[in-house]
Amino acid sequence: MSDRGGWLKIAGLGPGDEALITPEVSAALADATDVVGYVPYVERVAPRPGLVRHGSDNREEIRRAEQALRMAAEGRRVVVVSSGDPGVFAMAAALFEALEEAAPEWCAPDIQVLPGISAMLAASARLGAPLGHDFCCINLSDNLKPWALIERRLQLAAEADFAMAFYNPRSRARPEGFGRVLRVLRDACGAGRPIMFARAVSTPEESIRVTTLGDAVPEMADMRTLVMVGSSQTRWIERGGMPWVYTPRSA
Amino acid sequence: MSDRGGWLKIAGLGPGDEALITPEVSAALADATDVVGYVPYVERVAPRPGLVRHGSDNREEIRRAEQALRMAAEGRRVVVVSSGDPGVFAMAAALFEALEEAAPEWCAPDIQVLPGISAMLAASARLGAPLGHDFCCINLSDNLKPWALIERRLQLAAEADFAMAFYNPRSRARPEGFGRVLRVLRDACGAGRPIMFARAVSTPEESIRVTTLGDAVPEMADMRTLVMVGSSQTRWIERGGMPWVYTPRSA
Repeated sequence: MSDRGGWLKIAGLGPGDEALITPEVSAALADATDVVGYVPYVERVAPRPGLVRHGSDNREEIRRAEQALRMAAEGRRVVVVSSGDPGVFAMAAALFEALEEAAPEWCAPDIQVLPGISAMLAASARLGAPLGHDFCCINLSDNLKPWALIERRLQLAAEADFAMAFYNPRSRARPEGFGRVLRVLRDACGAGRPIMFARAVSTPEESIRVTTLGDAVPEMADMRTLVMVGSSQTRWIERGGMPWVYTPRSA
Repeated sequence: MSDRGGWLKIAGLGPGDEALITPEVSAALADATDVVGYVPYVERVAPRPGLVRHGSDNREEIRRAEQALRMAAEGRRVVVVSSGDPGVFAMAAALFEALEEAAPEWCAPDIQVLPGISAMLAASARLGAPLGHDFCCINLSDNLKPWALIERRLQLAAEADFAMAFYNPRSRARPEGFGRVLRVLRDACGAGRPIMFARAVSTPEESIRVTTLGDAVPEMADMRTLVMVGSSQTRWIERGGMPWVYTPRSA
Protein backbone atom coordinates (compact mmCIF):
# COMPACT_ATOMS: atom_id res chain seq x y z
CA MET A 1 0.00 0.00 0.00
CA SER A 2 1.33 3.44 -0.85
CA ASP A 3 1.76 6.09 1.81
CA ARG A 4 -0.83 8.16 -0.03
CA GLY A 5 -3.54 5.57 -0.51
CA GLY A 6 -6.12 5.26 2.20
CA TRP A 7 -7.40 1.89 3.24
CA LEU A 8 -10.08 0.42 5.41
CA LYS A 9 -9.70 -2.78 7.40
CA ILE A 10 -12.56 -4.25 9.36
CA ALA A 11 -10.82 -6.17 12.10
CA GLY A 12 -11.77 -8.57 14.87
CA LEU A 13 -10.11 -8.02 18.26
CA GLY A 14 -11.16 -11.42 19.58
CA PRO A 15 -13.03 -11.91 22.86
CA GLY A 16 -10.78 -9.84 25.14
CA ASP A 17 -7.41 -11.47 25.84
CA GLU A 18 -4.52 -9.82 23.96
CA ALA A 19 -3.08 -13.29 23.28
CA LEU A 20 -6.12 -13.99 21.10
CA ILE A 21 -5.53 -11.06 18.73
CA THR A 22 -4.01 -12.28 15.46
CA PRO A 23 -0.68 -10.82 14.29
CA GLU A 24 -2.52 -9.68 11.13
CA VAL A 25 -4.82 -7.47 13.21
CA SER A 26 -1.97 -6.20 15.40
CA ALA A 27 -0.04 -5.18 12.27
CA ALA A 28 -3.05 -3.33 10.88
CA LEU A 29 -3.51 -1.44 14.16
CA ALA A 30 0.20 -0.54 14.25
CA ASP A 31 -0.08 0.94 10.75
CA ALA A 32 -3.41 2.75 11.18
CA THR A 33 -4.03 6.47 11.43
CA ASP A 34 -7.58 6.00 12.75
CA VAL A 35 -9.45 3.42 14.77
CA VAL A 36 -13.24 3.48 14.67
CA GLY A 37 -15.72 1.48 16.73
CA TYR A 38 -17.98 1.07 19.71
CA VAL A 39 -16.35 2.85 22.69
CA PRO A 40 -15.30 -0.21 24.76
CA TYR A 41 -13.70 -1.85 21.70
CA VAL A 42 -11.82 1.29 20.66
CA GLU A 43 -10.52 1.54 24.22
CA ARG A 44 -8.90 -1.86 23.82
CA VAL A 45 -6.47 -0.25 21.32
CA ALA A 46 -3.65 1.50 23.17
CA PRO A 47 -3.28 5.21 22.37
CA ARG A 48 -0.13 6.28 20.52
CA PRO A 49 1.05 9.40 18.67
CA GLY A 50 -0.34 9.46 15.14
CA LEU A 51 -3.38 7.36 15.98
CA VAL A 52 -6.82 8.93 16.37
CA ARG A 53 -9.38 6.81 18.20
CA HIS A 54 -13.03 7.46 17.28
CA GLY A 55 -15.33 5.80 19.79
CA SER A 56 -19.05 5.83 19.13
CA ASP A 57 -22.17 4.55 20.76
CA ASN A 58 -23.76 1.16 20.31
CA ARG A 59 -26.45 0.99 17.57
CA GLU A 60 -24.50 3.62 15.61
CA GLU A 61 -23.20 1.00 13.18
CA ILE A 62 -24.23 2.60 9.90
CA ARG A 63 -23.06 6.11 10.84
CA ARG A 64 -19.77 4.63 12.04
CA ALA A 65 -19.35 2.67 8.79
CA GLU A 66 -19.97 5.83 6.75
CA GLN A 67 -17.42 7.73 8.80
CA ALA A 68 -14.85 4.99 8.20
CA LEU A 69 -15.53 4.86 4.44
CA ARG A 70 -15.24 8.65 4.21
CA MET A 71 -11.96 8.80 6.09
CA ALA A 72 -10.44 5.98 4.00
CA ALA A 73 -11.56 7.74 0.80
CA GLU A 74 -9.75 10.84 2.10
CA GLY A 75 -6.52 8.85 2.33
CA ARG A 76 -6.56 7.80 6.00
CA ARG A 77 -5.61 4.29 7.10
CA VAL A 78 -8.66 3.22 9.03
CA VAL A 79 -9.30 0.15 11.16
CA VAL A 80 -12.90 -0.51 12.18
CA VAL A 81 -12.72 -2.67 15.28
CA SER A 82 -15.22 -5.26 16.44
CA SER A 83 -15.04 -7.60 19.36
CA GLY A 84 -14.68 -11.25 18.33
CA ASP A 85 -14.89 -11.70 14.58
CA PRO A 86 -16.14 -8.80 12.44
CA GLY A 87 -18.25 -11.12 10.26
CA VAL A 88 -20.31 -12.67 13.08
CA PHE A 89 -22.97 -10.21 14.24
CA ALA A 90 -20.49 -7.35 14.15
CA MET A 91 -19.29 -4.49 11.94
CA ALA A 92 -18.56 -6.21 8.60
CA ALA A 93 -22.20 -6.55 7.51
CA ALA A 94 -22.93 -2.96 8.57
CA LEU A 95 -19.94 -1.75 6.59
CA PHE A 96 -21.14 -3.42 3.40
CA GLU A 97 -24.67 -2.15 3.97
CA ALA A 98 -23.20 1.37 4.11
CA LEU A 99 -20.91 0.72 1.13
CA GLU A 100 -23.84 -0.34 -1.01
CA GLU A 101 -25.65 2.92 -0.24
CA ALA A 102 -22.53 5.07 -0.43
CA ALA A 103 -21.63 7.71 -2.98
CA PRO A 104 -19.36 6.17 -5.66
CA GLU A 105 -16.32 8.18 -4.53
CA TRP A 106 -16.39 6.30 -1.23
CA CYS A 107 -15.99 2.93 -2.95
CA ALA A 108 -12.46 3.60 -4.11
CA PRO A 109 -10.48 2.66 -1.01
CA ASP A 110 -8.88 -0.67 -0.55
CA ILE A 111 -11.15 -2.64 1.81
CA GLN A 112 -10.19 -5.79 3.69
CA VAL A 113 -11.88 -7.84 6.40
CA LEU A 114 -9.49 -9.33 9.00
CA PRO A 115 -10.98 -12.29 10.88
CA GLY A 116 -10.82 -12.65 14.65
CA ILE A 117 -11.54 -15.27 17.30
CA SER A 118 -15.30 -15.08 17.70
CA ALA A 119 -16.91 -15.33 21.15
CA MET A 120 -18.46 -18.59 19.98
CA LEU A 121 -15.07 -20.20 19.32
CA ALA A 122 -13.52 -18.86 22.53
CA ALA A 123 -16.45 -20.03 24.66
CA SER A 124 -16.49 -23.38 22.95
CA ALA A 125 -12.76 -23.86 23.64
CA ARG A 126 -13.25 -23.07 27.32
CA LEU A 127 -16.01 -25.64 27.64
CA GLY A 128 -14.41 -28.43 25.61
CA ALA A 129 -16.04 -28.91 22.21
CA PRO A 130 -19.77 -28.21 22.49
CA LEU A 131 -19.86 -27.15 18.82
CA GLY A 132 -17.94 -30.29 17.79
CA HIS A 133 -20.55 -31.27 15.24
CA ASP A 134 -23.15 -29.52 13.04
CA PHE A 135 -24.31 -26.31 14.69
CA CYS A 136 -26.08 -23.02 14.12
CA CYS A 137 -25.49 -19.53 15.34
CA ILE A 138 -28.40 -17.16 16.02
CA ASN A 139 -28.55 -13.52 17.08
CA LEU A 140 -31.35 -13.33 19.67
CA SER A 141 -31.72 -9.57 19.43
CA ASP A 142 -35.03 -8.54 17.95
CA ASN A 143 -33.83 -5.01 17.17
CA LEU A 144 -33.59 -5.80 13.47
CA LYS A 145 -35.88 -8.81 12.95
CA PRO A 146 -39.29 -9.90 14.20
CA TRP A 147 -39.58 -12.15 17.22
CA ALA A 148 -41.60 -14.69 15.18
CA LEU A 149 -38.58 -15.30 12.93
CA ILE A 150 -36.33 -15.94 15.94
CA GLU A 151 -38.83 -18.41 17.36
CA ARG A 152 -39.20 -20.19 14.03
CA ARG A 153 -35.41 -20.54 13.68
CA LEU A 154 -35.14 -21.95 17.19
CA GLN A 155 -37.76 -24.57 16.40
CA LEU A 156 -36.18 -25.58 13.09
CA ALA A 157 -32.71 -25.66 14.68
CA ALA A 158 -34.01 -28.02 17.37
CA GLU A 159 -35.67 -30.16 14.72
CA ALA A 160 -32.39 -30.33 12.78
CA ASP A 161 -30.68 -31.34 16.04
CA PHE A 162 -28.02 -28.66 15.70
CA ALA A 163 -25.86 -27.61 18.60
CA MET A 164 -26.62 -23.88 18.96
CA ALA A 165 -24.71 -20.71 19.80
CA PHE A 166 -26.66 -17.58 20.71
CA TYR A 167 -25.41 -14.01 20.61
CA ASN A 168 -27.06 -11.04 22.36
CA PRO A 169 -29.36 -13.13 24.54
CA ARG A 170 -30.58 -10.35 26.77
CA SER A 171 -30.63 -6.62 27.20
CA ARG A 172 -32.33 -4.13 29.46
CA ALA A 173 -34.51 -3.11 26.51
CA ARG A 174 -35.84 -6.67 26.03
CA PRO A 175 -35.68 -8.43 29.39
CA GLU A 176 -38.50 -10.87 28.57
CA GLY A 177 -37.22 -12.22 25.24
CA PHE A 178 -34.69 -14.65 26.63
CA GLY A 179 -37.27 -16.24 28.96
CA ARG A 180 -39.33 -17.00 25.86
CA VAL A 181 -36.26 -18.46 24.15
CA LEU A 182 -35.69 -20.79 27.10
CA ARG A 183 -39.34 -21.93 27.02
CA VAL A 184 -39.24 -22.65 23.27
CA LEU A 185 -36.01 -24.62 23.64
CA ARG A 186 -37.26 -26.56 26.67
CA ASP A 187 -40.40 -27.59 24.76
CA ALA A 188 -38.39 -28.55 21.68
CA CYS A 189 -35.31 -30.19 23.26
CA GLY A 190 -36.45 -31.39 26.69
CA ALA A 191 -35.45 -30.26 30.18
CA GLY A 192 -32.32 -32.43 30.33
CA ARG A 193 -30.50 -30.79 27.40
CA PRO A 194 -27.24 -29.04 28.41
CA ILE A 195 -27.09 -25.26 28.21
CA MET A 196 -23.93 -23.24 28.74
CA PHE A 197 -23.49 -19.60 29.73
CA ALA A 198 -20.08 -18.16 28.89
CA ARG A 199 -19.71 -14.57 30.05
CA ALA A 200 -16.83 -12.29 29.08
CA VAL A 201 -14.63 -15.21 28.06
CA SER A 202 -10.87 -14.57 28.29
CA THR A 203 -11.33 -11.36 30.33
CA PRO A 204 -10.85 -10.90 34.10
CA GLU A 205 -14.66 -10.99 34.44
CA GLU A 206 -14.99 -14.38 32.80
CA SER A 207 -17.60 -16.71 34.26
CA ILE A 208 -18.81 -20.01 32.87
CA ARG A 209 -21.83 -22.01 33.94
CA VAL A 210 -23.07 -25.37 32.68
CA THR A 211 -26.61 -26.49 33.51
CA THR A 212 -29.69 -27.95 31.82
CA LEU A 213 -32.61 -26.27 30.09
CA GLY A 214 -34.76 -27.43 33.00
CA ASP A 215 -32.65 -25.50 35.51
CA ALA A 216 -31.78 -22.47 33.37
CA VAL A 217 -33.26 -19.06 34.22
CA PRO A 218 -33.06 -15.87 32.15
CA GLU A 219 -30.92 -14.10 34.77
CA MET A 220 -28.01 -16.42 33.93
CA ALA A 221 -27.36 -14.33 30.78
CA ASP A 222 -26.68 -10.70 30.03
CA MET A 223 -25.46 -8.92 26.89
CA ARG A 224 -21.87 -10.07 27.53
CA THR A 225 -22.92 -13.73 27.65
CA LEU A 226 -22.58 -16.21 24.82
CA VAL A 227 -25.13 -18.95 25.33
CA MET A 228 -24.77 -22.44 23.87
CA VAL A 229 -27.20 -25.34 23.82
CA GLY A 230 -26.09 -28.86 22.99
CA SER A 231 -27.54 -31.19 20.38
CA SER A 232 -29.22 -34.43 21.49
CA GLN A 233 -25.74 -36.03 21.33
CA THR A 234 -23.89 -33.50 23.50
CA ARG A 235 -22.25 -35.12 26.54
CA TRP A 236 -20.29 -34.01 29.55
CA ILE A 237 -17.28 -35.40 31.38
CA GLU A 238 -16.98 -34.66 35.10
CA ARG A 239 -13.59 -33.37 36.21
CA GLY A 240 -14.36 -31.68 39.53
CA GLY A 241 -15.75 -28.16 39.15
CA MET A 242 -16.97 -27.33 35.68
CA PRO A 243 -17.32 -30.41 33.48
CA TRP A 244 -16.00 -30.72 29.96
CA VAL A 245 -18.86 -30.51 27.45
CA TYR A 246 -18.51 -31.90 23.97
CA THR A 247 -20.54 -32.97 20.97
CA PRO A 248 -19.17 -36.14 19.35
CA ARG A 249 -18.20 -36.13 15.69
CA SER A 250 -21.00 -38.47 14.65
CA ALA A 251 -24.72 -37.65 14.23
CA MET B 1 2.89 -24.78 34.82
CA SER B 2 5.71 -26.63 36.52
CA ASP B 3 8.58 -28.11 34.53
CA ARG B 4 7.54 -31.54 35.77
CA GLY B 5 3.81 -31.46 35.04
CA GLY B 6 2.68 -32.63 31.64
CA TRP B 7 -0.02 -30.80 29.82
CA LEU B 8 -2.10 -31.15 26.72
CA LYS B 9 -3.26 -28.25 24.56
CA ILE B 10 -5.54 -28.75 21.60
CA ALA B 11 -4.69 -25.83 19.38
CA GLY B 12 -5.99 -24.28 16.16
CA LEU B 13 -3.36 -23.20 13.61
CA GLY B 14 -5.85 -21.15 11.60
CA PRO B 15 -6.38 -21.57 7.86
CA GLY B 16 -2.74 -21.38 6.72
CA ASP B 17 -1.25 -17.89 6.97
CA GLU B 18 1.19 -17.50 9.89
CA ALA B 19 -0.30 -14.05 10.56
CA LEU B 20 -3.56 -15.76 11.51
CA ILE B 21 -2.04 -17.88 14.29
CA THR B 22 -2.86 -16.39 17.70
CA PRO B 23 -0.02 -15.48 20.08
CA GLU B 24 -1.58 -17.92 22.57
CA VAL B 25 -1.05 -20.82 20.15
CA SER B 26 2.46 -19.64 19.20
CA ALA B 27 3.43 -19.56 22.88
CA ALA B 28 2.09 -23.09 23.44
CA LEU B 29 4.07 -24.37 20.45
CA ALA B 30 7.23 -22.64 21.71
CA ASP B 31 6.86 -24.37 25.08
CA ALA B 32 5.89 -27.85 23.81
CA THR B 33 7.96 -31.02 23.83
CA ASP B 34 5.66 -32.79 21.37
CA VAL B 35 3.36 -31.80 18.53
CA VAL B 36 0.76 -34.32 17.40
CA GLY B 37 -1.56 -34.17 14.39
CA TYR B 38 -2.39 -34.93 10.80
CA VAL B 39 0.85 -34.84 8.78
CA PRO B 40 0.29 -31.60 6.80
CA TYR B 41 -0.69 -29.72 9.98
CA VAL B 42 2.29 -31.00 11.97
CA GLU B 43 4.52 -29.88 9.10
CA ARG B 44 3.27 -26.33 9.60
CA VAL B 45 5.17 -26.28 12.92
CA ALA B 46 8.87 -25.53 12.33
CA PRO B 47 11.24 -28.19 13.69
CA ARG B 48 13.52 -27.18 16.58
CA PRO B 49 15.74 -28.98 19.11
CA GLY B 50 13.65 -30.39 21.96
CA LEU B 51 10.47 -30.69 19.91
CA VAL B 52 9.26 -34.05 18.61
CA ARG B 53 6.74 -33.87 15.78
CA HIS B 54 4.35 -36.84 15.52
CA GLY B 55 2.52 -36.76 12.19
CA SER B 56 -0.23 -39.29 11.61
CA ASP B 57 -2.67 -40.13 8.87
CA ASN B 58 -6.11 -38.68 8.34
CA ARG B 59 -8.97 -40.65 9.99
CA GLU B 60 -6.57 -41.60 12.81
CA GLU B 61 -8.16 -39.11 15.18
CA ILE B 62 -8.91 -41.40 18.11
CA ARG B 63 -5.53 -43.14 18.07
CA ARG B 64 -3.85 -39.74 17.84
CA ALA B 65 -5.88 -38.42 20.77
CA GLU B 66 -4.95 -41.45 22.89
CA GLN B 67 -1.28 -40.96 22.03
CA ALA B 68 -1.48 -37.32 23.10
CA LEU B 69 -3.26 -38.13 26.38
CA ARG B 70 -0.70 -40.82 27.18
CA MET B 71 2.27 -38.56 26.52
CA ALA B 72 0.79 -35.73 28.61
CA ALA B 73 0.12 -38.19 31.46
CA GLU B 74 3.80 -39.17 31.24
CA GLY B 75 4.81 -35.56 31.83
CA ARG B 76 5.29 -34.34 28.24
CA ARG B 77 4.04 -30.94 27.10
CA VAL B 78 1.88 -31.87 24.14
CA VAL B 79 0.14 -29.70 21.54
CA VAL B 80 -2.41 -31.42 19.33
CA VAL B 81 -2.67 -29.28 16.21
CA SER B 82 -5.69 -28.81 13.98
CA SER B 83 -6.12 -26.57 11.00
CA GLY B 84 -8.58 -23.73 11.61
CA ASP B 85 -10.25 -24.00 15.01
CA PRO B 86 -9.93 -27.26 16.97
CA GLY B 87 -13.60 -27.17 18.02
CA VAL B 88 -15.09 -26.97 14.51
CA PHE B 89 -14.94 -30.41 12.85
CA ALA B 90 -11.42 -30.96 14.14
CA MET B 91 -9.47 -32.60 16.95
CA ALA B 92 -11.18 -31.25 20.10
CA ALA B 93 -14.26 -33.51 19.87
CA ALA B 94 -12.08 -36.55 19.08
CA LEU B 95 -9.89 -35.76 22.07
CA PHE B 96 -12.85 -35.68 24.45
CA GLU B 97 -14.26 -38.87 22.93
CA ALA B 98 -10.92 -40.53 23.70
CA LEU B 99 -10.75 -38.93 27.16
CA GLU B 100 -14.16 -40.32 28.08
CA GLU B 101 -13.02 -43.84 27.15
CA ALA B 102 -9.56 -43.44 28.63
CA ALA B 103 -8.10 -45.15 31.67
CA PRO B 104 -8.39 -42.85 34.74
CA GLU B 105 -4.63 -42.26 34.96
CA TRP B 106 -4.81 -40.48 31.60
CA CYS B 107 -7.27 -37.92 32.89
CA ALA B 108 -4.82 -36.28 35.23
CA PRO B 109 -3.03 -33.89 32.88
CA ASP B 110 -3.96 -30.31 32.54
CA ILE B 111 -6.01 -30.01 29.33
CA GLN B 112 -6.79 -26.78 27.50
CA VAL B 113 -8.38 -25.98 24.14
CA LEU B 114 -6.86 -22.99 22.31
CA PRO B 115 -9.17 -21.49 19.69
CA GLY B 116 -8.06 -20.63 16.17
CA ILE B 117 -9.36 -18.79 13.12
CA SER B 118 -11.69 -21.33 11.53
CA ALA B 119 -11.82 -21.75 7.74
CA MET B 120 -15.38 -20.45 7.90
CA LEU B 121 -14.32 -17.12 9.44
CA ALA B 122 -11.32 -16.72 7.12
CA ALA B 123 -13.39 -17.48 4.01
CA SER B 124 -16.15 -15.21 5.18
CA ALA B 125 -13.68 -12.35 5.69
CA ARG B 126 -12.29 -12.78 2.18
CA LEU B 127 -15.75 -12.59 0.64
CA GLY B 128 -17.13 -9.73 2.73
CA ALA B 129 -19.67 -10.84 5.32
CA PRO B 130 -21.69 -13.77 3.91
CA LEU B 131 -22.29 -15.08 7.46
CA GLY B 132 -23.32 -11.62 8.64
CA HIS B 133 -26.59 -12.88 10.05
CA ASP B 134 -27.97 -16.17 11.47
CA PHE B 135 -26.16 -19.13 9.95
CA CYS B 136 -25.41 -22.81 10.32
CA CYS B 137 -22.34 -24.90 9.82
CA ILE B 138 -22.58 -28.48 8.52
CA ASN B 139 -19.98 -31.18 7.94
CA LEU B 140 -20.92 -32.79 4.61
CA SER B 141 -18.81 -35.89 5.19
CA ASP B 142 -20.92 -39.01 5.61
CA ASN B 143 -18.06 -40.97 7.19
CA LEU B 144 -19.62 -40.70 10.63
CA LYS B 145 -23.30 -40.00 9.97
CA PRO B 146 -25.94 -41.23 7.55
CA TRP B 147 -26.60 -39.33 4.34
CA ALA B 148 -30.31 -39.00 5.26
CA LEU B 149 -29.37 -36.87 8.28
CA ILE B 150 -27.25 -34.55 6.13
CA GLU B 151 -30.10 -34.12 3.65
CA ARG B 152 -32.62 -33.45 6.43
CA ARG B 153 -30.35 -30.79 7.97
CA LEU B 154 -29.93 -29.10 4.59
CA GLN B 155 -33.68 -28.94 4.13
CA LEU B 156 -34.34 -27.58 7.62
CA ALA B 157 -31.49 -25.07 7.27
CA ALA B 158 -33.03 -23.82 4.02
CA GLU B 159 -36.43 -23.60 5.68
CA ALA B 160 -34.91 -21.59 8.56
CA ASP B 161 -33.33 -19.31 5.94
CA PHE B 162 -29.88 -19.63 7.48
CA ALA B 163 -26.76 -18.67 5.60
CA MET B 164 -24.75 -21.90 5.51
CA ALA B 165 -21.11 -22.94 5.74
CA PHE B 166 -20.11 -26.44 4.65
CA TYR B 167 -16.97 -28.32 5.61
CA ASN B 168 -15.61 -31.40 3.81
CA PRO B 169 -17.82 -31.04 0.74
CA ARG B 170 -16.15 -33.63 -1.41
CA SER B 171 -13.60 -36.43 -1.36
CA ARG B 172 -12.42 -39.11 -3.74
CA ALA B 173 -14.22 -41.66 -1.55
CA ARG B 174 -17.60 -39.93 -2.00
CA PRO B 175 -17.52 -38.07 -5.31
CA GLU B 176 -21.31 -38.17 -5.79
CA GLY B 177 -22.40 -36.75 -2.39
CA PHE B 178 -21.78 -33.11 -3.17
CA GLY B 179 -23.82 -33.29 -6.39
CA ARG B 180 -26.75 -34.44 -4.27
CA VAL B 181 -26.15 -31.58 -1.84
CA LEU B 182 -26.30 -29.08 -4.72
CA ARG B 183 -29.57 -30.59 -5.99
CA VAL B 184 -31.19 -30.48 -2.54
CA LEU B 185 -30.13 -26.86 -2.08
CA ARG B 186 -31.26 -25.82 -5.57
CA ASP B 187 -34.69 -27.32 -4.94
CA ALA B 188 -34.94 -25.69 -1.52
CA CYS B 189 -33.37 -22.27 -2.18
CA GLY B 190 -33.80 -21.69 -5.93
CA ALA B 191 -31.24 -21.43 -8.71
CA GLY B 192 -30.45 -17.76 -8.09
CA ARG B 193 -29.09 -18.17 -4.56
CA PRO B 194 -25.40 -17.23 -4.20
CA ILE B 195 -22.92 -20.01 -3.48
CA MET B 196 -19.25 -19.41 -2.68
CA PHE B 197 -16.27 -21.73 -3.00
CA ALA B 198 -13.27 -20.70 -0.91
CA ARG B 199 -10.33 -23.03 -1.41
CA ALA B 200 -7.17 -23.00 0.73
CA VAL B 201 -7.89 -19.49 2.03
CA SER B 202 -4.82 -17.50 3.13
CA THR B 203 -2.39 -19.95 1.49
CA PRO B 204 -0.52 -19.51 -1.82
CA GLU B 205 -3.09 -21.87 -3.42
CA GLU B 206 -6.05 -19.73 -2.40
CA SER B 207 -8.87 -19.50 -4.93
CA ILE B 208 -12.29 -18.00 -4.45
CA ARG B 209 -15.31 -18.32 -6.70
CA VAL B 210 -18.75 -16.76 -6.36
CA THR B 211 -21.63 -18.09 -8.43
CA THR B 212 -25.26 -19.21 -8.06
CA LEU B 213 -26.74 -22.58 -7.17
CA GLY B 214 -28.00 -22.74 -10.77
CA ASP B 215 -24.48 -22.49 -12.16
CA ALA B 216 -22.60 -24.48 -9.49
CA VAL B 217 -21.16 -27.89 -10.36
CA PRO B 218 -19.63 -30.42 -7.94
CA GLU B 219 -16.16 -30.03 -9.46
CA MET B 220 -15.95 -26.51 -8.01
CA ALA B 221 -15.18 -28.07 -4.59
CA ASP B 222 -12.61 -30.45 -3.21
CA MET B 223 -11.66 -31.38 0.37
CA ARG B 224 -9.72 -28.13 0.80
CA THR B 225 -12.76 -26.03 -0.11
CA LEU B 226 -15.05 -24.29 2.34
CA VAL B 227 -18.43 -23.83 0.66
CA MET B 228 -20.92 -21.17 1.71
CA VAL B 229 -24.48 -20.57 0.58
CA GLY B 230 -26.28 -17.32 1.27
CA SER B 231 -29.64 -16.84 2.95
CA SER B 232 -32.53 -15.36 0.94
CA GLN B 233 -31.24 -11.92 2.02
CA THR B 234 -27.61 -12.33 0.94
CA ARG B 235 -26.52 -9.68 -1.58
CA TRP B 236 -23.48 -8.86 -3.61
CA ILE B 237 -21.70 -5.63 -4.51
CA GLU B 238 -19.77 -5.53 -7.79
CA ARG B 239 -16.25 -4.15 -7.54
CA GLY B 240 -14.59 -5.52 -10.71
CA GLY B 241 -13.41 -9.10 -10.37
CA MET B 242 -14.83 -10.96 -7.41
CA PRO B 243 -17.80 -9.16 -5.83
CA TRP B 244 -18.25 -8.51 -2.14
CA VAL B 245 -20.91 -10.83 -0.73
CA TYR B 246 -22.73 -9.99 2.46
CA THR B 247 -25.80 -10.88 4.48
CA PRO B 248 -27.45 -7.83 6.03
CA ARG B 249 -27.98 -7.66 9.77
CA SER B 250 -31.77 -7.85 9.54
CA ALA B 251 -33.90 -10.93 8.78
